[in-house]
Amino acid sequence: MREAIRRYLLERLPDPKAAPRPELAQYAQLLRDYPERGGKLLRGQLLLATAQAHGAPPERALPAAAALELFQNWVLIHDDIEDASEMRRGRPTLHRLYSVPLALNAGDALHAVMWRVLLEAAYPTPVLQEFARLVETTARGQHLDLAWIEAERFDLSPEDYLEMVRQKAAYYTAVAPLKLGALVAGHTPHPAFEPAGLQLGVAFQIIDDVLNLEGNPDKYGKEIAGDLREGKRTLILLRFLAAAPPAERARAEALLKTPPAEKDPAELAWLHARLRHTGAVAYAREVAHRLAREGLEALTPVLTALPDPEAGRTVLELLEALVEREA
Amino acid sequence: MREAIRRYLLERLPDPKAAPRPELAQYAQLLRDYPERGGKLLRGQLLLATAQAHGAPPERALPAAAALELFQNWVLIHDDIEDASEMRRGRPTLHRLYSVPLALNAGDALHAVMWRVLLEAAYPTPVLQEFARLVETTARGQHLDLAWIEAERFDLSPEDYLEMVRQKAAYYTAVAPLKLGALVAGHTPHPAFEPAGLQLGVAFQIIDDVLNLEGNPDKYGKEIAGDLREGKRTLILLRFLAAAPPAERARAEALLKTPPAEKDPAELAWLHARLRHTGAVAYAREVAHRLAREGLEALTPVLTALPDPEAGRTVLELLEALVEREA
Repeated sequence: MREAIRRYLLERLPDPKAAPRPELAQYAQLLRDYPERGGKLLRGQLLLATAQAHGAPPERALPAAAALELFQNWVLIHDDIEDASEMRRGRPTLHRLYSVPLALNAGDALHAVMWRVLLEAAYPTPVLQEFARLVETTARGQHLDLAWIEAERFDLSPEDYLEMVRQKAAYYTAVAPLKLGALVAGHTPHPAFEPAGLQLGVAFQIIDDVLNLEGNPDKYGKEIAGDLREGKRTLILLRFLAAAPPAERARAEALLKTPPAEKDPAELAWLHARLRHTGAVAYAREVAHRLAREGLEALTPVLTALPDPEAGRTVLELLEALVEREA
Repeated sequence: MREAIRRYLLERLPDPKAAPRPELAQYAQLLRDYPERGGKLLRGQLLLATAQAHGAPPERALPAAAALELFQNWVLIHDDIEDASEMRRGRPTLHRLYSVPLALNAGDALHAVMWRVLLEAAYPTPVLQEFARLVETTARGQHLDLAWIEAERFDLSPEDYLEMVRQKAAYYTAVAPLKLGALVAGHTPHPAFEPAGLQLGVAFQIIDDVLNLEGNPDKYGKEIAGDLREGKRTLILLRFLAAAPPAERARAEALLKTPPAEKDPAELAWLHARLRHTGAVAYAREVAHRLAREGLEALTPVLTALPDPEAGRTVLELLEALVEREA
């Protein structure tokens, strides 16, 4: 399934060998760089399995699955610029390999390829509208995340974090694949997809935040504790700050407000250790597992009552894999 | 006509006053910033008039015209980041007013709004495909422009410049409005639209390059000679370099290869004067007027033979205005 999505996607990107001039061969390489780095393609697989559960043949869902992965790729390119991230899937980020201008432009080109792929497949309008919606939702969440860092805001509650993550990550990671799977099969998405998908998508992001602090560097592919360097607001950090003695809170905030390149590695190591030893990481992991359990419980009866219940069970396994992962 | 497009566009952007939290009011302001700065909306007007010439009522073409202006706005936001531009329509660029991360993300959001507007209007697939095509074409041209600057290349011919500009600017400025005008009216675009539109669109860009050097600062809205500071390859510059004595060529190339912030203002003033006094600017203006004349000659019989020849003449006037302008 994953291989079929990857192949479909890569075949729709420009081929460096067919480029009429060397600069355009480079352009093709920029567009192919992130998609060729691999990745689990969990969102595309989720869409494909959901469509199958609703009775659609895989070839009908393949273009939408590839388009969702194209979305993921151009968003990562732009996010990596916005966050000044250094590593992605075990290699330097695209703007570090080339430059910010070339990477930004390549992201825009992949955004257009996403639409081209969807239009070639002649999907009905609700499928296309769901894509416009997921892009806008993600951008709104990303704005919250970035605005909090720039305004040096730490007066944020867990509910603020959840609101940001629902829009920035949960919607496109879990809600959109479920809805799109139904829509490409010509079905109306079940009303449970949105609330349960948001729970599972938030759980996915919290686990991502946990892995950023505790992941195995060989498997993780990004900089360990990069979120601390970038000053990201996570549930872990907000939990720690809420419970920390005033002196520790002040020390942590001073560090988080320092520009990434100027942060003292010893201070980063201190905060990293505090997040783990005060139970903030354990708390976040527990919240993630509770949300995932609730989401799966809500979806199990729905997905196993669809035309193809075996594919429905594959959807549930993929949703579980969002949370039970090491990278 | 212009006012109708602007109103339609602004009504489809988020309203800061309706935002559920202050950060999202800021998000709405970012999205509205460039569209609210005004501008001539020539591309939207061209699309609208072309649709009318083909017999479509204005309300049928209005969403596509607004979408084309949305394209122009998000592309300008991203271009201004890529070029490190300082001014846009008489005010600081969006990334200077806010930050690169917030401006980049706002550009992505406007790109999604563009598609939302098109989908709401329920246009047939060829209209949507033309939009995907114009985004990809522009990105390819932008890559050429940026790649030449980064590789410090000056071994470029006028034909290289024309190839870049056809993709980066001419296609979306003149070809796409003509084609989209026909498509929203349910017609097949006339085969003359592409070659003649490319001529007129290239003429538009050459005049833009000329205005960048000779424009009236009060009307122009961008930094005068900003192209020189950014090291842009223009027809004017390539013509000057091809004819310059070796010492002048070396002096100019050394300056152009210097990063924008480090360029000596006295050297910039020297090059600026040389471009004007060696006839390179006059040459480029002459090429622009020849291309515009040829394009208009090819389009006149086509546009005045359409169902509404008076609207066809408006299209010709708007195309002339692309070249006969002061800002």
